[in-house]
Amino acid sequence: MAVAPSGIVTLLTDFGLRDPFVGVMKGVMLGHCPALSFIDLTHDIAPQDVAAAAFWLGHAYRYFPEGTVHLAVVDPGVGSSRRALAALCDGHYFVAPDNGVLGAVLGADASVVQLEVPQTASRTFHGRDVFAPAAAALASGQPPSALGATVTDWLSIASAAPVVGEHTSVGQVMVVDHFGNLISNVRLDATRDVAHVICKGMQLPWVRSYADAQPGEIVALLDSWGLVEIAARNSNAAAKLGAGPGEAIELHYRA
Amino acid sequence: MAVAPSGIVTLLTDFGLRDPFVGVMKGVMLGHCPALSFIDLTHDIAPQDVAAAAFWLGHAYRYFPEGTVHLAVVDPGVGSSRRALAALCDGHYFVAPDNGVLGAVLGADASVVQLEVPQTASRTFHGRDVFAPAAAALASGQPPSALGATVTDWLSIASAAPVVGEHTSVGQVMVVDHFGNLISNVRLDATRDVAHVICKGMQLPWVRSYADAQPGEIVALLDSWGLVEIAARNSNAAAKLGAGPGEAIELHYRA
Amino acid sequence: MAVAPSGIVTLLTDFGLRDPFVGVMKGVMLGHCPALSFIDLTHDIAPQDVAAAAFWLGHAYRYFPEGTVHLAVVDPGVGSSRRALAALCDGHYFVAPDNGVLGAVLGADASVVQLEVPQTASRTFHGRDVFAPAAAALASGQPPSALGATVTDWLSIASAAPVVGEHTSVGQVMVVDHFGNLISNVRLDATRDVAHVICKGMQLPWVRSYADAQPGEIVALLDSWGLVEIAARNSNAAAKLGAGPGEAIELHYRA
Repeated sequence: MAVAPSGIVTLLTDFGLRDPFVGVMKGVMLGHCPALSFIDLTHDIAPQDVAAAAFWLGHAYRYFPEGTVHLAVVDPGVGSSRRALAALCDGHYFVAPDNGVLGAVLGADASVVQLEVPQTASRTFHGRDVFAPAAAALASGQPPSALGATVTDWLSIASAAPVVGEHTSVGQVMVVDHFGNLISNVRLDATRDVAHVICKGMQLPWVRSYADAQPGEIVALLDSWGLVEIAARNSNAAAKLGAGPGEAIELHYRA
Repeated sequence: MAVAPSGIVTLLTDFGLRDPFVGVMKGVMLGHCPALSFIDLTHDIAPQDVAAAAFWLGHAYRYFPEGTVHLAVVDPGVGSSRRALAALCDGHYFVAPDNGVLGAVLGADASVVQLEVPQTASRTFHGRDVFAPAAAALASGQPPSALGATVTDWLSIASAAPVVGEHTSVGQVMVVDHFGNLISNVRLDATRDVAHVICKGMQLPWVRSYADAQPGEIVALLDSWGLVEIAARNSNAAAKLGAGPGEAIELHYRA
Repeated sequence: MAVAPSGIVTLLTDFGLRDPFVGVMKGVMLGHCPALSFIDLTHDIAPQDVAAAAFWLGHAYRYFPEGTVHLAVVDPGVGSSRRALAALCDGHYFVAPDNGVLGAVLGADASVVQLEVPQTASRTFHGRDVFAPAAAALASGQPPSALGATVTDWLSIASAAPVVGEHTSVGQVMVVDHFGNLISNVRLDATRDVAHVICKGMQLPWVRSYADAQPGEIVALLDSWGLVEIAARNSNAAAKLGAGPGEAIELHYRA
């Protein structure tokens, strides 16, 4: 089940861009494998927000060529006994701590191994000392099995699945994006007609695109990830509603 | 009028870097064309600020090699009937919505086409589903004419041109940069001696460089884009003056 | 003493990412040398904070392959008579203004030259007009000696060295990172046992990793750069302590 590496490594962290942490990880990888292309997914995950990291990684990785290595370091347990993982799943490689950040990507067919932590690794920056070397090894064509022993009991994050009923689907806001759009975990039943969405006690009209709303109007629509999203045209729905991750939303279908 | 692609794609958006939107666009382009080099111009255009996007794109693109593709997605009208454009002008390729963001780059000799929007495109993320594939096609050597039908009536943004008089040039602040410098639309008449600049009722001395000012002093000078700029040495002129985009400035020449 | 260029250029500036300044510097370099790989160390150095730039550059450069060019533009004196430098030291190339930003990297064996400033250079953006072309020249294989005349009296920043006593090492906080960790200039005497660290009048326990602290507890530990760091587990030590750069810290060893 080998997959030829694409030469691309994506990075997703909560390191921010104020310090050179991300750049240093790239330097380490280039030392192992000089011809890599790096693509930053984001480094602005809120510190230690494993759930948001898992959400975005699960949605983003599919847009990259097969054989891409996805390095995700949101790692509140660095220096503890939490395991470090490398994996191959769905034609993509992943490197991350075993804390649920891979929960949305690792399926039943995943090959997952536990990375060895070198004696010389620091206790505070496994991104540089453990995960970056592993990502470079995968990008160089080494299989996960060369990097450690098989793991079958990796962690997932417990996250409430939407409840799909006869007339409604009930879920929650997962993340708020840069524009203030509230992205939920509710997938649309494409065979049904949506009447409206309820959030924070407000009944929000269902539209086909932002452009169908009045400027500033709060609406709900199908977003580009296949999920129900609450948005305010050319405005910030999260600020207007006072809502964020965890807020309940109800999708009501027409009878 | 073919121009060989440089293999470089620049990106300018209002997407921010908090979410993986920019990374996903790059993933899509790499899927079409594996050897691209991406250069981020900025992703921190204020949401929907087409004028600032047009200003910076117009000034930045010239510093790249010929054949570079410039992808600019500031797109308040996504999902509406606004057109999506690809263009070749001045030896550079451009991809952007038809909302004025290309207003400062498209001259009379531009070849401009309207991109087809695939049936499968989402209604909220044309950056990923329409513009990124078009940029990758241009970077792969396809001419704009392969991507759609010719357009001759693209939109520009109405922006007041400076008024050049016998003794003064009167214009306005276009953008405020990271340092708080106020960059105007006034070009210098190099044959004339500048006396001073007036902004917010203050008479600001004309200097040759930041280093000619006292620390904190508000001055005016010729900036690196050929424009009149108001700056405060090692300080923030915008905050000190309480001025921003749209503020009037008057350049006074010596008699 | 030639060192083959790695093809990598790192960038460290105080330009931020809101404007296209960094992208334009990369465009200029690609015009001189089309196959460069750029790695951003950070562009969020506080405006004109030469000390923070010097600190991070000194710690980050070692993680890159030999022959990498490190371009550091924190340049409050742009347009003044401060010199522009290119250097080769410790197998790496450096380009920066002569204001101390290279103080932590240039050793006695450094080859340093003063860059010529072209007549056409702007007075406000030497990053684009002076430093970027020099970095591209070094990355293309030109030695520093081809770029200007030798300099032996480059500037360092005066920064208080830690005072190492019989029972204590006394130093100061150098930078605060994205997570609010306070990174000091105190190196550990590995032959000694640490009792605790004092900062802001608080006695902080010495731990081996973040994971050894209680959530929110303020502790001190050896960080990944070999320095004493004050951290609060899954929290922000700088905010909790009300401390920042310059704050004194005392490391107490066991008798």
